[in-house]
Amino acid sequence: MDIADWRTRIDALDEQIVKLLNERAACAIAIGEIKRQSSAAIYEPRREREVIEHARNVNSGPLAGEQVQDIYERIMDIMRSLQRPDHGVHAAPSAPGKS
Amino acid sequence: MDIADWRTRIDALDEQIVKLLNERAACAIAIGEIKRQSSAAIYEPRREREVIEHARNVNSGPLAGEQVQDIYERIMDIMRSLQRPDHGVHAAPSAPGKS
Repeated sequence: MDIADWRTRIDALDEQIVKLLNERAACAIAIGEIKRQSSAAIYEPRREREVIEHARNVNSGPLAGEQVQDIYERIMDIMRSLQRPDHGVHAAPSAPGKS
Repeated sequence: MDIADWRTRIDALDEQIVKLLNERAACAIAIGEIKRQSSAAIYEPRREREVIEHARNVNSGPLAGEQVQDIYERIMDIMRSLQRPDHGVHAAPSAPGKS
């Protein structure tokens, strides 16, 4: 296989990954709705640690565990923002204390 | 469905996402190998823009395009690091001359 063949394969994988990320986002939104109805906290550090731990546990490589974690930390940032009332899209996430 | 049911669904999705990310990583490593053999540049900004564009184009929500892009920028950082000789994390077993 040459580079073009591998890239065709990558593009197909990306289509599946984007689809699954959206299915995951729909679940996060549903959970956000339940949390809102019960006035529960959006940010649940223990659950987030469990998610990262699970992603690392099911990882069989070639990605290293810390690389999976790195990607998942970004995914969790986005998913958490989806549970906020404006769905996190409009307000740019800014680091606290950063000007 | 209650929160626990949604989380069971999320865990199952994460297993698929991690699997696909690893399949994508294997493709990136294969491309890195071809680039190394032909002394081609690891960093190809045009291809990276195409990947992000593709991910945004196939996105049907509920994630916003910029959220997909945000996740993909992290994915691309990791994938690029896999194409470097040390694979970003692991010591390369096939580089005996390296100190």
